[in-house]
Amino acid sequence: MMMDLISFKPIGRVVNPFSKPVDANHIRAVESQIIVDPSYSKGLLDLGKGDQIMVIYFFHQSKGFDLLQHPRGDKSRPRRGVFTLRSPRRPNPIGVTVAEIVALEGNVLRVRGLDAINGTPVLDLKPA
Amino acid sequence: MMMDLISFKPIGRVVNPFSKPVDANHIRAVESQIIVDPSYSKGLLDLGKGDQIMVIYFFHQSKGFDLLQHPRGDKSRPRRGVFTLRSPRRPNPIGVTVAEIVALEGNVLRVRGLDAINGTPVLDLKPA
Repeated sequence: MMMDLISFKPIGRVVNPFSKPVDANHIRAVESQIIVDPSYSKGLLDLGKGDQIMVIYFFHQSKGFDLLQHPRGDKSRPRRGVFTLRSPRRPNPIGVTVAEIVALEGNVLRVRGLDAINGTPVLDLKPA
Repeated sequence: MMMDLISFKPIGRVVNPFSKPVDANHIRAVESQIIVDPSYSKGLLDLGKGDQIMVIYFFHQSKGFDLLQHPRGDKSRPRRGVFTLRSPRRPNPIGVTVAEIVALEGNVLRVRGLDAINGTPVLDLKPA
């Protein structure tokens, strides 16, 4: 199957205290900032406190993938197809999480519920 | 803000009767096939009829973007920030839709509820 590469330029980056992958629940519990490239700030218009937003991002620390994986790496559970899992170790390491907006301050979105680590490139934001 | 390009190789393509963008409801109403590259077939294991799946794809016919847009192109409605809309005319033209699996046949997923046109490159599949 002929497949050309598709390239994206991130629209922003995540800032939070987690520089390495940890339990997603720990990351979700704290506030993260999404620093949006100022050239895209106008696209944030009409977002505000309490809105749910879908954050599409790149698992930038993920290396390689397996088509069959134990859910959450738990070897007591049978391996499943990667497309039934949210594992970062996937053919295209794209993450999708719905977060809640705490505040919008210029080009900075403060959110809760995001499970991406510090420095994560953000590809898109959409209504959840 | 320094932003390196991020590149993905599609995992498959959409096949359906719609070669040009039309009202999304028309596309959702028919069955689409997602032809997955056979090298990734094993990753489809455990998907089956009735499962909801999140399809992440590339709006390959979308050209350019506006940071402020009238919702659904309706000029009677005020312009909004693109990140509050699902318009394909966005900085990174990524689409996300939840579809229902009708059948899995080898490397072919038959789905309903997908609003991507024929030939759309699929980047990822995740549990909805």
